[in-house]
This record gives sequence, C-alpha cells and structure tokens, in this order.
Amino acid sequence: MQYQKLHHLQEIITQKELDVAYLSDPMTIKYLTGFGSDPVERVLALLVFPDHDPFLFGPALEVEAIKGTGWPFPVYGYLDHEAPFEMIAAEVKKRVANPKMWGAELGFLTVTRLRALKERFTNAHFNFDLTPTIEQMRLIKSADEIDKLNEAGKWADFAFKVGFEAVHVGQSEQAVAAELEYALKKHGIMQMSFETLIQAGPHAAEPHGATSDRMIQDNQLVLFDLGTIYDGYISDASRTIAVGNLNERQKDIYKVCLEAQLTAQAAAKPGMTAAELDRVARDVIEKAGYGEYFIHRLGHGMGMSEHEFPSIMEGNNMLLEPGMCFSIEPGIYIPGFAGVRIEDCVHITKDGCLPFTHTTKELQSFN
Amino acid sequence: MQYQKLHHLQEIITQKELDVAYLSDPMTIKYLTGFGSDPVERVLALLVFPDHDPFLFGPALEVEAIKGTGWPFPVYGYLDHEAPFEMIAAEVKKRVANPKMWGAELGFLTVTRLRALKERFTNAHFNFDLTPTIEQMRLIKSADEIDKLNEAGKWADFAFKVGFEAVHVGQSEQAVAAELEYALKKHGIMQMSFETLIQAGPHAAEPHGATSDRMIQDNQLVLFDLGTIYDGYISDASRTIAVGNLNERQKDIYKVCLEAQLTAQAAAKPGMTAAELDRVARDVIEKAGYGEYFIHRLGHGMGMSEHEFPSIMEGNNMLLEPGMCFSIEPGIYIPGFAGVRIEDCVHITKDGCLPFTHTTKELQSFN
Repeated sequence: MQYQKLHHLQEIITQKELDVAYLSDPMTIKYLTGFGSDPVERVLALLVFPDHDPFLFGPALEVEAIKGTGWPFPVYGYLDHEAPFEMIAAEVKKRVANPKMWGAELGFLTVTRLRALKERFTNAHFNFDLTPTIEQMRLIKSADEIDKLNEAGKWADFAFKVGFEAVHVGQSEQAVAAELEYALKKHGIMQMSFETLIQAGPHAAEPHGATSDRMIQDNQLVLFDLGTIYDGYISDASRTIAVGNLNERQKDIYKVCLEAQLTAQAAAKPGMTAAELDRVARDVIEKAGYGEYFIHRLGHGMGMSEHEFPSIMEGNNMLLEPGMCFSIEPGIYIPGFAGVRIEDCVHITKDGCLPFTHTTKELQSFN
Repeated sequence: MQYQKLHHLQEIITQKELDVAYLSDPMTIKYLTGFGSDPVERVLALLVFPDHDPFLFGPALEVEAIKGTGWPFPVYGYLDHEAPFEMIAAEVKKRVANPKMWGAELGFLTVTRLRALKERFTNAHFNFDLTPTIEQMRLIKSADEIDKLNEAGKWADFAFKVGFEAVHVGQSEQAVAAELEYALKKHGIMQMSFETLIQAGPHAAEPHGATSDRMIQDNQLVLFDLGTIYDGYISDASRTIAVGNLNERQKDIYKVCLEAQLTAQAAAKPGMTAAELDRVARDVIEKAGYGEYFIHRLGHGMGMSEHEFPSIMEGNNMLLEPGMCFSIEPGIYIPGFAGVRIEDCVHITKDGCLPFTHTTKELQSFN
C-alpha cells in the first residue's frame, strides 16, 4: 500500500495533538512520498496535518517530477524570486487558521528557517522534535525496502567481482576503483553510496585513508569497502583479498577477522542487544590478541544511508528486532603493517539475520 | 599567506564585538583552515575568538588528519560515546569565562545544535548570523582559489574530449558518462562536482532530466553538463554537440545560444550589475524569438560549490567585481524537439572576465 508510511506519520501527529508537521530532510521526504531530490539551498517541504491531506512544496522546476511519481495530493512550486515561506504559510493557514503546536525535524531544520516559520506563526510552539520520530520509523524496514537493499547488495557483489579481477601488481588503488565504477555505470548504476575505498598493504591500516595513487604490490592484503545506490537504498560491504603470497601474520589477522565476522553474523538475532552483538565479535578478536587493533564499533545502521540506527556498539542496549538493518564489520588495523575488514550488511529476521551481499568471505588470492 | 582568511574573520568578529564565533559548515571550515571533511552526523566545529587562538573540534578519528594539514592551533577530538557540546563548552570557558555575544552560521546550524549550545551558555545571545559574513568573504576569490578553479577547469575540458569521442549512434547517455568519468578516475580525479548530465535529442529539453539509458540517435543535438573537483574547488561547464546532420531549426537554436553566450562573456566586466549581464544574453535570445525557451537565470556563483554568489539573474543589482566567479550558461529548451546549453564559468578580472574552461564552443559534429 502506497503512502502507508505517510499515513502512519499522520496517525502519530494526531496522537501527539500536533496541528501541523513540517518535514524538510530530503531523505525523509523520499521515505514518506517516494519523491527523491536534493534541493540544496532551495526549499523543499512536506506539510502533514491531522485532518487534512498533506501537501508538498518545492522549487517550480520540481513540480512535474513530483506529479510524475503519482503523488495524489497538492503540490505547490515557487520560482527563485518568490518568497517560499510566505507561500507555505498561506497554504497552511488555508487548512488550519491558527496552528499552535508544530512538529519539525529539529535535527535537520536550520535556525534561519525555523525563524522564517516563527515570524509567520508568532503564537506557535516548535518544540516537538520529529527527528527521533522519523528515525524510529526508519529503524524497521518494510518488505519493499528490504527488496531494494537486496538489489543494491547485488550490485556491490558485482562491483567486487570486477574490482578483484582488476587487481594486479603495479595497478594503482584509484585505477581499480575506476574499473569497478565504470562497469557499474555501464550497467546503469550511476551512483556509489560513498566514495569507493581501496587500500593496499599498510595503507589499509589508516582508518581514515582514501583511495590513493599508491601502487598495489606483491604479497599484500588489499581492502575493498564499497556500495551502490539502488532506487534510494544503499549497499555497503567490505572484503579484503590477497595479492601474491601472504606471510603467517597476514594470514592470521585475516583468519581472526573472518572468524569474528562469521561468529557475529551467526549470532545476530532478535532479542539480543546491539552491545551484546558488538561484544561477540570483539571477544573473538581480543582472545586472539588483536583487541587493541579493532578500533571502531562493530557496525552502523543502514538503509537509505549508512548513518541510521541501530549503532552496533558498546553501551547501546537497544534490542535487535526483525527489520533492523546494519553492518557487521569487524576490522584489524596494524599500523605500518596491514589492515583487514570484512563486512556484510544484514537485516534481522524472525530468528537470525540475512545478508544483502553474498561475495565469498573465504580468503581469495589474486596474482 | 596561510590562514589569511581566518585572520580576516577574526578581525570581523572583533569589530562586531562578538565574544566567540562558532563555525560548523564543513565548507566554511575547509575555506578557513584548509581542512576538508564531511563529518555527516558527527560534530565538527571551528571556534574563533577576538583575543585567543582559534581551535578545531571534531571526531577523534579526524585529529591526525587535521594536524597533517599543518594546523598550528589546538585541535580536540571526541569519541562516539563522549558528549561533544560539553567538551566544546569547557574549552570555550577556559578562554572566555562568560561569552555573551555569539556568532554562528544560522543558515547551516540546526535547531538541535543551537539548543545544545544555549543550554550550556544560558545568558548568551545567538543573534549574530555569520552565514552572510562567510558568503561575502567567499564571494571574492583569491589568487590561490583561481589557480584551483583553473585546474578543475582543465579536467572538465579533458572530460569533454573523452566524452565527445565516446558519442556514437546507439550508445546510451549513461555509457558516455561512464567513459568520461572512467578516464578522469584513471588520472586520479575521483570526484565529479555534480552528477554528470548527458542528454540526447528531445531529452535535453527536460530541464530537470538526468543522464538516462536512452540511446543516442542520428541527427541529434547532445547536451553535456559536467564538472570535476580539484582540491576542494569545482569546475562546471556545458557543451552541446551534433551527431550526424542537423536540420535548420537545430542549427538555428545552437547559433542563437552560442551568440548569447559569447556576447555575455565578452560583456562581463567590473561595474555592471548581475542583472545587466543576464539581460545581455536574454536580449540575444529574445530577439531571435526563443525567449520563452530560456527558462532559467543566466548563471550562478561558484567556487567550492555551484551554489555560491553572485546569482546572475533579473533583479540582482549586485555590482560585478574582480575575483567574482560564476557561470554564463544561456540555454534554449524546446519541449519535444531539442535542448541547447553552452556554459563556461569565469572569473571577473580588472577589465573583463576569463573562463576556467577552453573547449571550443563552435558547433562540433560527430558521427
């Protein structure tokens, strides 16, 4: 059922006795309406009411695209020389003469724009923060969202395949990234969900490094971290492969990281806490003596972005529930030596979890 | 001289009698400090004082990278489980016990974060908006910024060359985009400044279309709009080329659009207004009878992004000055028929303007 999420939000604001809700994060608007667009400095907003149809307001150039999505409710456009908040206020007042209780995404709305609204509704209160409401809604993915995440995952698997084949001694990290992104674009996958990360040898131990012009050398571990966007939903996965022959220490950190990843992925299920799951992977790495080299949380929530809930980390006692989606990505980073990270994103099911990516996690060697 | 811009901001806040300035737009931080990073949901801030050294505050993972830029002032990092605004407040209070007058970028700062600051400085006023201050500073580019914009422009020219060679009948728009981005990445240019736009035939008349899987056909005009990022500075340019043989109407809209572009670029100089420059191009197109098909402003400011000042449009009486950078991009879009846009970005000099891109604007034909 289309607009089910929007309907659910309408129920929430009715229950909270709000007069109007002002949503303006483009990702929220995509989530609730299916219309995805980044208006940058222009105004794009979704207004939702307890007893009236919602409306969209945005740049005039976007109006046809909004209608093209099948949006059945009003949409109003403004030209660059027009005053968007005047126009929004007028439309709101047609529906609710004197709205007092507003909801808004206070974690997204800027001070300037809040003031623009307040000037036009001087008796109104803007204290109801919809940011946690929307985060909570987005936490549990619906079946159609899982479908899109699976599709995005397939393209990440494809990218690994192309990327691994492009790896050889003397090739730069950047050239490998170029190859796999090129192959994706040839298939119509035009956007990565973040900058593709390919790091060879000791470079992979730099937690905030970027894909560089360094050449891949023989007998190195090469770390891949990449993702694609499919219809507004992302994939995000990491694999580490071998070039040439590895020494015992390289093999050992791979083996330990893999065991941590597989153990955590096998353990993830409803009813455990995010912190407990982090602990499962961390125990494996600590027992093998590499605890000090696993310097980040086990995972992050994901869906439309890689910055969602739940965060899989110490201290987070959120219970895992079916439909939650997150990464399981232990890593071991030994400065000056090598880095390994192995990552699948998964969704929690009734009794476990299923990954969105399926590229083998057994150590693969290339020459 | 390094940190000249930061020093200038310090002078401004001294003059405005502010006790402290809180800057948090990552682009502002890159502009003032040279450190570029998008912290997404994490906190990254630059605090500037009239009588103390500034400091940077950000995620712990970023601290080494900040130091690596040569940043000579304090930098403080926080871990994910720490409370960033507590830590920022403590550092501020070490310098100014009771800061009353704050400056902040109110066009960027969210309501949630303003409230986090207010809670810790209950007597403070946050009414001084630094957004226009920073916009005004960024309006006039320095010599080192012009150098970077020229370098970014060179890579846009390179991309046109590769892209034009990839055009042939039966090739998709997306495949052409894939080819040119691939070639850039092979040269280490990993990021485009916006999604590459390639639109063939009638598709180019859709003002908000995207590069699609449509096939390029014979006897079409094909519109390219693209840009690269070089050390935080962008390029942005458009060219329209011919595939096969054009009919008289296709040739005519190209000729008129080119005349409008060349006339405006030759006219741009200090002392005229942005609106006057828009009018120069619009007059050419209106006199040729295509006025109704030129449906956007002549240009936008650019530098670190394509959303800067000055806006070259009707109603903007800002006087052009040396160092201002903007696009000159007339377009003619006839629905169902074809679209033409020709664009260089330029910087105003003492007595005229100079473009950042140099690909010929004469009509090029490919088969």
